[in-house]
Amino acid sequence: MASEKNAGLVLLDFWMSSFAQRCRIDLAEKGLPYEHVEENIMATKSDRLLRSNPIYKQIPVLLHDGRIIIESLVILQYLDEAFPDTRSLLPADPSGRAHARFWADYVDKKVHGCASRLYREQQLQAGAEMVEILRTLEEELGDKEFFGGEHGFGFVDVALVPFTAWFASFDKYWGVNVVEAAPRLAAWAARCMKRESVSKSLYSPEKVYDFIAVMRKDAGFE
Amino acid sequence: MASEKNAGLVLLDFWMSSFAQRCRIDLAEKGLPYEHVEENIMATKSDRLLRSNPIYKQIPVLLHDGRIIIESLVILQYLDEAFPDTRSLLPADPSGRAHARFWADYVDKKVHGCASRLYREQQLQAGAEMVEILRTLEEELGDKEFFGGEHGFGFVDVALVPFTAWFASFDKYWGVNVVEAAPRLAAWAARCMKRESVSKSLYSPEKVYDFIAVMRKDAGFE
Repeated sequence: MASEKNAGLVLLDFWMSSFAQRCRIDLAEKGLPYEHVEENIMATKSDRLLRSNPIYKQIPVLLHDGRIIIESLVILQYLDEAFPDTRSLLPADPSGRAHARFWADYVDKKVHGCASRLYREQQLQAGAEMVEILRTLEEELGDKEFFGGEHGFGFVDVALVPFTAWFASFDKYWGVNVVEAAPRLAAWAARCMKRESVSKSLYSPEKVYDFIAVMRKDAGFE
Repeated sequence: MASEKNAGLVLLDFWMSSFAQRCRIDLAEKGLPYEHVEENIMATKSDRLLRSNPIYKQIPVLLHDGRIIIESLVILQYLDEAFPDTRSLLPADPSGRAHARFWADYVDKKVHGCASRLYREQQLQAGAEMVEILRTLEEELGDKEFFGGEHGFGFVDVALVPFTAWFASFDKYWGVNVVEAAPRLAAWAARCMKRESVSKSLYSPEKVYDFIAVMRKDAGFE
């Protein structure tokens, strides 16, 4: 029954997307097999992508036996709920779930919002803001091994970890050394990379840096 | 047992906030008594607010027996999960839940994002964008009585309905007549207002208009 369900999973993906990487990590954590479809979102988007997500025309999109699930954090919660026998990212208790949802949303608003300024703005001036964001996250992490606390590697860890591949770019573009600015967060990132689900889903910091350079050039910067 | 739990609910609120209104509507739908604390967020924020939400220093904040829940959509999901014997906003099936989460997020990103331009931008030029957003929502509504479909008045309805008090301001500032632009959405708004949970939680379109005028004046516009 489980394998029949799993067989219907398709992920419309793009290698560099932090949001798609979240889905790949979770699918690996859950041990769910799926069909991986790489979308060339920088060139021509496929009919399947445009039909599946007419609102945003963006990846990641999860297709599951004809159902269409969009937005990475929505996909993560869907996978928890549709496959309750697999490893859950959210804890069971309501306040723990609310806490995790708050911080994952913080990652979307703050980390993604600030990081994307690397290829949206000609003047690179958001370094101090990023330091403040990283320190806020470090304070939330505290002495825990993972953001999930007793629950272990969880929802916030999966939401944030794709951006660790950007740390080297924060340094190169903004002079933000994450090891110095937020050492416990840097140590957390290293712990996450020991998980196969993470190391196999992320790309190297060098590839991220090269990608940002291409994006900046396309935007007419530099 | 239920009343003991309910007794611990406190909502840090601000009358005009669409996000706080969501929480008030849901608490009314669920029949949960709570202590209502009006925060004067335009002047001095209370110590309790600053301690509860040091990250954003914003309402709404739900306090529940010492637990702090922040962000309106997180609060709605928390109330569903912490009070499972009350009327749930999200349906039971995982794909219905994912669908509702997607559209509530759309409301945050698009409706709120666009509406807030009324007091963030001197030049009022987002009317055409708002029409497109309202028509997209109308298409999603289709022939359903509520966005919740078979589940009835639900998560997306609660997320969106506070913004219906802004419809008159869309007309006055942008010349966007919602009844003409999206008649089925306007009819949905009227249906929602027949619910006591909604009519008692929203303020009149005139008060919203006056508030926006004050915000624009404070920002040095007009």
